Amino acid sequence: MNLHSQRLKKLQSTLKQPVLLASLEAFSPNLYYYSGVQETPAVALITKNHAFLYSWHEAEGFENYSLKGFRKNFFELLEKQKINKLSIDEKSDAVRFVFKLLAKKIKLSPASEGLSAPREIKSGHEISLMKKAQDLTKKIVAECSKSGTENSFAGLMEFKARKTGFALNAFPPIVAVNENAAIPHHSPTNKKINSRDLLLVDCGLTNEKYCADYTTTFYEGKNKVWKDACVAVSEALKASAKKVRPGVKGKVLTNASLKVLSEYGFKQNTFKDIGLSLGHQLGLEVHEGSKPFDELTLKKGMAITIEPGLYFKKEFGVRFEDVFFVK
Amino acid sequence: MNLHSQRLKKLQSTLKQPVLLASLEAFSPNLYYYSGVQETPAVALITKNHAFLYSWHEAEGFENYSLKGFRKNFFELLEKQKINKLSIDEKSDAVRFVFKLLAKKIKLSPASEGLSAPREIKSGHEISLMKKAQDLTKKIVAECSKSGTENSFAGLMEFKARKTGFALNAFPPIVAVNENAAIPHHSPTNKKINSRDLLLVDCGLTNEKYCADYTTTFYEGKNKVWKDACVAVSEALKASAKKVRPGVKGKVLTNASLKVLSEYGFKQNTFKDIGLSLGHQLGLEVHEGSKPFDELTLKKGMAITIEPGLYFKKEFGVRFEDVFFVK
Repeated sequence: MNLHSQRLKKLQSTLKQPVLLASLEAFSPNLYYYSGVQETPAVALITKNHAFLYSWHEAEGFENYSLKGFRKNFFELLEKQKINKLSIDEKSDAVRFVFKLLAKKIKLSPASEGLSAPREIKSGHEISLMKKAQDLTKKIVAECSKSGTENSFAGLMEFKARKTGFALNAFPPIVAVNENAAIPHHSPTNKKINSRDLLLVDCGLTNEKYCADYTTTFYEGKNKVWKDACVAVSEALKASAKKVRPGVKGKVLTNASLKVLSEYGFKQNTFKDIGLSLGHQLGLEVHEGSKPFDELTLKKGMAITIEPGLYFKKEFGVRFEDVFFVK
Repeated sequence: MNLHSQRLKKLQSTLKQPVLLASLEAFSPNLYYYSGVQETPAVALITKNHAFLYSWHEAEGFENYSLKGFRKNFFELLEKQKINKLSIDEKSDAVRFVFKLLAKKIKLSPASEGLSAPREIKSGHEISLMKKAQDLTKKIVAECSKSGTENSFAGLMEFKARKTGFALNAFPPIVAVNENAAIPHHSPTNKKINSRDLLLVDCGLTNEKYCADYTTTFYEGKNKVWKDACVAVSEALKASAKKVRPGVKGKVLTNASLKVLSEYGFKQNTFKDIGLSLGHQLGLEVHEGSKPFDELTLKKGMAITIEPGLYFKKEFGVRFEDVFFVK
């Protein structure tokens, strides 16, 4: 029995009602976690005693079906299995079936939280995959020199990641110069990077689908405002990181960062002021878990990011981010 | 009034009930089409007389709100607006709110089809963006030589795309050697590409968010089976392309390809046999439109792909694909 089918068995043993997961265009981390299938499209229906998979791939523990005639066959399967209650992985493409299922009077409930909960606690193997991903991401960023455009800088990182046998695809890489760095999820443009510019880079590669997430800000030493902001954010990150241990609430980490930023004179324009969290869980998804970061209670085996920042709209932004494992 | 707010006004004039669109982690093409906002997260609620946007960006025609306190403020807004019926863009991240909204006894209905319909007919400007994207994609693929690994080949293409000022991000690029080419949505691995291998490449860059989608198969001239398959699929593509005009059903194009494949002796292992369509619409999404390709009636201004293929599981696959505009 492989790792995925062990997880499937465990899931089935606690399953209260059938659950639907789908990966039509986007990769579904839950579907992958329980089946090992990464390619799209794939649809899985899991009941206490059966597990059905429509995919181009076959998965252990599943009854494997062809994708040919899926639309018809899938709804016939639901009828044949007499399913009138269904949990939906609402963070997967399965949500696309919501209205078709409601029309068939099937009672729906959310499944993502339950499906994702086992993923919160990482095994030693998962942690080692993530550590490698994070280390390689840092190495790639460090190897790039401040030149070209936001876009070509991103391309160089993507190329370097692929050359090492991985891909920089945990999320679309952010490369942001000066005022663009004040936009938290900025997409690279063809804006030129000059050597005296402030440059924010946020990216991550994946290692066997496990994500890295790393942010750094390069600044010109002579610009005092930028320097002060970078020192403050970097110290805030360290202060929060020191608090990481089982039982601690995310809120405690957030407050530690805010305290440092405030001590450095940055009482406004913080990550909090623009509606950002200090961090998030990560793993197969770059944003994992269903709880807001502040309400999260850290547990041994969790992987979190800490990413305080300062955002001065239309001027500049600073963010530093790293991944931490709760031990 | 910019292009996006013109579209918004037009949408509002025909709106029967309030509609919810969201771009939490993934880019939402509908949200972008009507607001111009590309960055995540962003949530829009559009009624006949109001349009509300929660985002880091502001959009013309919208009442713009901060993302700070979004969770609370958004549900308060729904109450204040006395909204008890809501259409949801079920192909956007708005579906994540389904269960919260059902719990509040709000009556839900699907909105994606109506929101996407205006996008099916492309303007001259949209077509020129897509043509440029497609031409550049072909140029980039042609510039890469058969070497390295599937992964490094993908990286080289990504790098070249960024260097020209674009990104190869219409979808994750497919680079597949020999038996991997039989998996339609194969993810690049570290498998080596030898000069005598069959190599399938499927990728597309985006130009102002408009997608290209191009597939080609390189084969070694001396392998007769591969050569026959490549000639057959390439001729099938041409036969279907000849049928493209307004009023024609997708099914007619599909049959034209299947007829050619059959004449070349490939009666099985066709795209149809593994549940694939001959093609799809594209634009802001690489897969647009809600109708299956065979049931689609072509209209002037539509952009479609045609991509016949042959898939010999665990042996090899062949696919050629190009984009066509209905004139």
